[in-house]
Amino acid sequence: MGVRKSIVLVSFFMLFLSLSSAYPKPRKQYKPCKHLVLFFHDIIYNGKNAANATSAIVAAPQGANLTILASQFHFGNIAVFDDPITLDNNLHSKPVGRAQGMYLYDTKNTYTAWLGFSFSLNTTAYQGSINFIGADPLMNKTRDISVVGGTGDFFMHRGVATIMTDAYEGEVYFRLRVDINFYECW
Amino acid sequence: MGVRKSIVLVSFFMLFLSLSSAYPKPRKQYKPCKHLVLFFHDIIYNGKNAANATSAIVAAPQGANLTILASQFHFGNIAVFDDPITLDNNLHSKPVGRAQGMYLYDTKNTYTAWLGFSFSLNTTAYQGSINFIGADPLMNKTRDISVVGGTGDFFMHRGVATIMTDAYEGEVYFRLRVDINFYECW
Amino acid sequence: MGVRKSIVLVSFFMLFLSLSSAYPKPRKQYKPCKHLVLFFHDIIYNGKNAANATSAIVAAPQGANLTILASQFHFGNIAVFDDPITLDNNLHSKPVGRAQGMYLYDTKNTYTAWLGFSFSLNTTAYQGSINFIGADPLMNKTRDISVVGGTGDFFMHRGVATIMTDAYEGEVYFRLRVDINFYECW
Repeated sequence: MGVRKSIVLVSFFMLFLSLSSAYPKPRKQYKPCKHLVLFFHDIIYNGKNAANATSAIVAAPQGANLTILASQFHFGNIAVFDDPITLDNNLHSKPVGRAQGMYLYDTKNTYTAWLGFSFSLNTTAYQGSINFIGADPLMNKTRDISVVGGTGDFFMHRGVATIMTDAYEGEVYFRLRVDINFYECW
Repeated sequence: MGVRKSIVLVSFFMLFLSLSSAYPKPRKQYKPCKHLVLFFHDIIYNGKNAANATSAIVAAPQGANLTILASQFHFGNIAVFDDPITLDNNLHSKPVGRAQGMYLYDTKNTYTAWLGFSFSLNTTAYQGSINFIGADPLMNKTRDISVVGGTGDFFMHRGVATIMTDAYEGEVYFRLRVDINFYECW
Repeated sequence: MGVRKSIVLVSFFMLFLSLSSAYPKPRKQYKPCKHLVLFFHDIIYNGKNAANATSAIVAAPQGANLTILASQFHFGNIAVFDDPITLDNNLHSKPVGRAQGMYLYDTKNTYTAWLGFSFSLNTTAYQGSINFIGADPLMNKTRDISVVGGTGDFFMHRGVATIMTDAYEGEVYFRLRVDINFYECW
């Protein structure tokens, strides 16, 4: 009897666990299953720096051009980029991969970008790609975007990436720090 | 013996539950773990409405310009937007956030858009962002796109968003209703 | 006692299973829960082939135009496309859907694209959409991108798509083979 009761209890306890893994309840604290901190470096083409530039304006609203960011907080500019990724904050460190994709400025009264890009990593530690999209309100100290998928060592991974503007020079050079927290690792 | 048999049965039953949570079988009816209905309002810049416009054409195919949507069902236009989100269908209701990102027209013989955008919500009920991508065949009454991630209160969420054109005026104002159903909530 | 011990063991075993379904450990070999092989056909507008073209350059860097791909490995070009999808490698086979979205060239010293697009399938076997993003280093024989979501028969699906350039003619026609492996099927 005592034994049977225990079985029933175990049974319900397990049922609860199984259901809770299928339909997780909101909770506040998750531990990432993988964590990376990387830096990438964006040098925007301004008509004079073709040799060094890693990105270029390719679309602009009516009245703007492709060498000067547009007037209303750059609203309507789309830039394409191929930025080196480094392990530390030094632009001249050996790159461990490339950040490639696009950003677009989408607000008229503050600096906000929308990002769609990938990290292609090629190091002894990591081989593969990580895919990101999300809104980037540039004036906030930290901004969270989504890691929506990955390949290679990041096969099927999902997570959240926290972006910080680590340094900038005028409107030509931007260094971004990215804290990538994966919560689905496979 | 009876007891041992029960244990074994419980064991197999639990094993089945655990496996089925890891590898869900196709089934037809899912209940969302969270549901939101929101409206957003797009006012396209046409050369005369700079003060009110919330979006602008920033790319167009050869022969087209940035103030008039292109001729073949707008094929080749990319628009960038920063649209107010409201809880009801009134453009003048207090916004609860912004819909920000891009859409592009990608069909020559009907109206079809491709969407990449985010909701940034800032209400007492919800703080955080929701990230969307997907095809939007505009002539269909309802169109489903993917919720591919989220941050803040929508941390790691996934789901499906159903878009409806709730109202429009010429080719300048569009009101969209979005039913967001999250099936992964964390 | 023996019985009680078994119960405890079962209990821990089940606990382990439940946790492992919630936090999967890295492993090397996964079986897809669904697999598709499809082809799509991209015919880029070059100023002379308006009737046949399925894609068009809509953005270009300073100094480039919208009928000739840009000089430095097409860096900075964005193209919008609406390509037929076929079950075999014949451009003239009956289409089973459309591949719609955008690609952009984002590298100055080799051919690399960034893709954001959807498959809209409409066959007896499959009805629904599949949404993709990812980096496409074109000179690699195979390239992996992420399947970040889906609708209809692909409701909430995730996976990895392997792209191969199956054939091309100059810089006008490209045939791509896509092996889609879904690992989350719902």
